[in-house]
Amino acid sequence: MGDKSWSQRAAEIESFKVMDLLKRARQLESEGYDVVHMEVGEPDFGTPAPVAEAAKVAIDKGLTQYTPAAGIPELRQRIAEFYKQRYGVDLPAERILVTAGASGALLLAFSLLTDAGQKMILSDPGYPCNRQFLRVLEAASTLVPVDASGNYQLTAESVAAHWDQDTAGVLLASPANPTGTVVADEELAAIADVVANRGGQLVVDELYHGLTYGFDATSVLQIQPDAFVLNSFSKYFGMTGWRLGWLVAPEGAVHELERMAQNLFISPPTVSQYAALAAFEPDTIAILEQRREAFRQRRDLLVAGLRDIGFELPVTPQGAFYVYADASRFTDNTFDFCWDILEDCKVAVTPGLDFGHHHASRHIRFSYTTDLDRIELALERIRQKVVG
Amino acid sequence: MGDKSWSQRAAEIESFKVMDLLKRARQLESEGYDVVHMEVGEPDFGTPAPVAEAAKVAIDKGLTQYTPAAGIPELRQRIAEFYKQRYGVDLPAERILVTAGASGALLLAFSLLTDAGQKMILSDPGYPCNRQFLRVLEAASTLVPVDASGNYQLTAESVAAHWDQDTAGVLLASPANPTGTVVADEELAAIADVVANRGGQLVVDELYHGLTYGFDATSVLQIQPDAFVLNSFSKYFGMTGWRLGWLVAPEGAVHELERMAQNLFISPPTVSQYAALAAFEPDTIAILEQRREAFRQRRDLLVAGLRDIGFELPVTPQGAFYVYADASRFTDNTFDFCWDILEDCKVAVTPGLDFGHHHASRHIRFSYTTDLDRIELALERIRQKVVG
Repeated sequence: MGDKSWSQRAAEIESFKVMDLLKRARQLESEGYDVVHMEVGEPDFGTPAPVAEAAKVAIDKGLTQYTPAAGIPELRQRIAEFYKQRYGVDLPAERILVTAGASGALLLAFSLLTDAGQKMILSDPGYPCNRQFLRVLEAASTLVPVDASGNYQLTAESVAAHWDQDTAGVLLASPANPTGTVVADEELAAIADVVANRGGQLVVDELYHGLTYGFDATSVLQIQPDAFVLNSFSKYFGMTGWRLGWLVAPEGAVHELERMAQNLFISPPTVSQYAALAAFEPDTIAILEQRREAFRQRRDLLVAGLRDIGFELPVTPQGAFYVYADASRFTDNTFDFCWDILEDCKVAVTPGLDFGHHHASRHIRFSYTTDLDRIELALERIRQKVVG
Repeated sequence: MGDKSWSQRAAEIESFKVMDLLKRARQLESEGYDVVHMEVGEPDFGTPAPVAEAAKVAIDKGLTQYTPAAGIPELRQRIAEFYKQRYGVDLPAERILVTAGASGALLLAFSLLTDAGQKMILSDPGYPCNRQFLRVLEAASTLVPVDASGNYQLTAESVAAHWDQDTAGVLLASPANPTGTVVADEELAAIADVVANRGGQLVVDELYHGLTYGFDATSVLQIQPDAFVLNSFSKYFGMTGWRLGWLVAPEGAVHELERMAQNLFISPPTVSQYAALAAFEPDTIAILEQRREAFRQRRDLLVAGLRDIGFELPVTPQGAFYVYADASRFTDNTFDFCWDILEDCKVAVTPGLDFGHHHASRHIRFSYTTDLDRIELALERIRQKVVG
């Protein structure tokens, strides 16, 4: 049975380039080198203690059976209250579906919105899995190049220009991975208008909400109450491995989504759901806000340091924990350059190619998911290499 | 924005009929009625204590970050050892991908094996989500009617007869949901031959392995080393809400599957993975084997009781925790009949329609996921209704 061929879809799903870098980084570490990790899209702070405690209590209570497909009612309610508190948005709990990470929310949303051959408009660069989900579903993506001139985000103008008869909707991410930029309120409203006028659907990835520095990001629900929102307990709430997220959907979509969730997931992880109830408690929020301040300091240090070395950052990233730096002063091939940085500086970063095609070979994503001392060390090592 | 239409795929995904019954059952309970639950596909025993303890230890150790997409190496290794112990099968750990429930394994396997329009051969009746996964992926299913004459399973003959140029492979389930039957070894080998001769792929759902009574089921890997196997920690291991399963794949498929898993899931739930390491410990297995004996007693009681009342069970179910009973002596519409049983007897069961079309309106699935006393009570109430 040696020579198998699998589906075309499987062949077209791309791997993350950074995985090979990560493997090499671990090898270097096993050889005794001290590698600074700035490649990972995961907070280094771990699960907040009150959340971890709540998980253990749930286990002791035997709360480990299946739950409703859309999540336990008390968590949906708690998330609804969070929208009231943070954004002043009144949201019935029924409009919130708890999912297996934002990954689960993406699969549900795209399954609902696209038929085979239909397209979602996405930014390039952007979170790479978005287009892979569409590919798996036999739908497609319209990748719209974005750059510093448009704050690395889609605009009403670019959305309108790329809309065609097969377009089902638009996915925005704000703050965005990898660029950390936030869509301005007026632009968000203008994009929502364009999408509504064309009878499409607007999906906004708000995964990095709570991780904006010096201001709070607006939820699209404050502007367009019928938008779809993707969110997660992974980033602001520090619960990556618990695999829990949520999808806010318009009321008329909830039954379809629940039906799909029943079939595709049965239910989200149960202990994670009970743990997440503690994520909204004041003690936890206090911890999360301290972490947010730490992230802000790291961003400021990293942005200043990279600019000083000679990386171009025409726009200061406003959120998430990424800096998407233009390295064209040093290279026109950041894929090779990332390997050089790893080998020569023992600093692991992610090449732009992992996030799209548009000027990807000029860019590098730095994650500031490591502390100030380590960021200083990484900057110093890279300076030695490229400046001398 | 009132009148939305969603994707065709969303419209075609079916809900479980039993959900409305379950809702009504809960309403009856809130009114003070004592409802016997025999509709649920979930063991009533809860998580084994050593597994729950291991989860708490993992949380205390801070093991709550993302893991590799295919799972932590030590769990993949532990599962590989399990195949050696239980089945005498040598399986490199690399061929095992840990997934978010068997649901995650199904999505990966079908994504790998089918392109748009391609078909998997499935039994009717069968686990309903199988065909919904295929629909979501724009692939399709060939539903092959099975009945008592063929042990409610696909046969080499029926597979060959239904194979056409768009067929990518076959999904068997052994023991099967809803019928509890096991494919005989010779038939399994013959089916594997038919599939291999046509250049297709064989996927076997072994989710209910460990829950066969009086004998151990053969894994397809003992017969066809290159088959795909779906399994789960939910059933035998009693870990439903932890959402953890696995997929065994041929070596040549592992890279494709890992790449898809990275994109679709990031990683399986972390605490669940560390907890699952304890699932293979002798203390846990001892608990699980006691539960297995309890399930056997329940099956024997339920099968005898239903036959005595007048339900037809031409084949004794050999595994899982389901009895798929022919109720044609009482009704030609088990959907209504299940509602009557709920209203009149306060016993919740699942209509055959949830599992397919073939003679579905004659059949009812009884789950023996409740203890002997409750099964006695349910039998007595149903007897009163239908026999008097």
